[in-house]
Amino acid sequence: MSLEEYYPVSCPFCAISVAYPPSSNSPIPLSPDPEKVFPQCHLILSTPHVLAFLDILPIAPGHILLTTRDHYRKLSDLYAASTHSQEESKRESAQESSRALGEYLPLVSAALVRATGIEDWNVVQNNGERAAQVVPHVHFHLIPRYQEGRREGKGNVDVGMLKSWRMFGRGAREDLDDEEGVEMARCLREALRVELGEEGSEGGGGEGGSKL
Amino acid sequence: MSLEEYYPVSCPFCAISVAYPPSSNSPIPLSPDPEKVFPQCHLILSTPHVLAFLDILPIAPGHILLTTRDHYRKLSDLYAASTHSQEESKRESAQESSRALGEYLPLVSAALVRATGIEDWNVVQNNGERAAQVVPHVHFHLIPRYQEGRREGKGNVDVGMLKSWRMFGRGAREDLDDEEGVEMARCLREALRVELGEEGSEGGGGEGGSKL
Ligand SMILES: [Zn+2]
Ligand SMILES: [Zn+2]
Repeated sequence: MSLEEYYPVSCPFCAISVAYPPSSNSPIPLSPDPEKVFPQCHLILSTPHVLAFLDILPIAPGHILLTTRDHYRKLSDLYAASTHSQEESKRESAQESSRALGEYLPLVSAALVRATGIEDWNVVQNNGERAAQVVPHVHFHLIPRYQEGRREGKGNVDVGMLKSWRMFGRGAREDLDDEEGVEMARCLREALRVELGEEGSEGGGGEGGSKL
Repeated sequence: MSLEEYYPVSCPFCAISVAYPPSSNSPIPLSPDPEKVFPQCHLILSTPHVLAFLDILPIAPGHILLTTRDHYRKLSDLYAASTHSQEESKRESAQESSRALGEYLPLVSAALVRATGIEDWNVVQNNGERAAQVVPHVHFHLIPRYQEGRREGKGNVDVGMLKSWRMFGRGAREDLDDEEGVEMARCLREALRVELGEEGSEGGGGEGGSKL
């Protein structure tokens, strides 16, 4: 079976999955190069089963996507693969991917809280066009809800937009600034390392990187 | 340590967790009594770590909640419990709860598709008041998106309401009708059994229960 059957080239998240293979050292990549794919990818987590990176059209600063490494369109496809795939290895991989999503959503949430100072956030996962799914590869949005008048980060995205459902589509969102993405992703990786009790830092920024 | 320290009585989902302990036979309860709690609970899944039941203020027919059996307020609290709890048993329980959420979201999604005939749905999990979290106990909403002009089920909930974010609050939603809840939950349990390859049926309804 060819690589392309596993990773449809037209899928941007499969392209990210191929460009950033899992490391054997840590689930948190060390200063990953955003230019390995186009548009840039600001990666914060890379395991054998899941990846997390910044949304390129953020609803609010720190808007993260957590996705499976393998291609499943909807959550129901992930379930089908875990029970009906002909190859045992594919069934196991789908089962492990499901559990990894459950395992990493709380960790990435904790890191988001630590890195941005927010207290409230939404997790949203859309299945199908009518549900505003744009990229047909299972992913969870983690979307910070900043306090009014207490904006963190340097972005100029209107967080009040979250009041309307339609901005889960692409229309009303603003492109992630590359430099801002680099800095936000670095802070999130630092926060993930703190949560995991890992030593070390990527440097850059002068404040230890735990708060923006 | 008393039971009440584990299960705050003021939390409605903890009340459900206590009223419906896990069964040793199957994760799908057999004709559970909705009257064990008030307001009624239409239970569809009950495992040592997670529960699923109908939302009593559905946005659309078949609106399901998947929750942890133990009390965690936000996803970050679930992560903190899995790493910082003093008792190893609590850390393990939190880790297993996280993985169970990931494992059961795809299964419950597949059953929702089977039972209602929908193709599209949203999964939403809110953390904190600013993110429209109402019950302070981690839970995922599974919200069907029906095709316009092709409504299934017997409810008269306006599914177009999902266009607006505010209906994740309690204001604009309509109480679940008890009889409708009983029938919907029965269909969802049947669909879960089919997905899990379990034999048997609860009877009731004349059509085998796989479609509403
Ligand atoms: Zn893909
Ligand atoms: Zn509770």
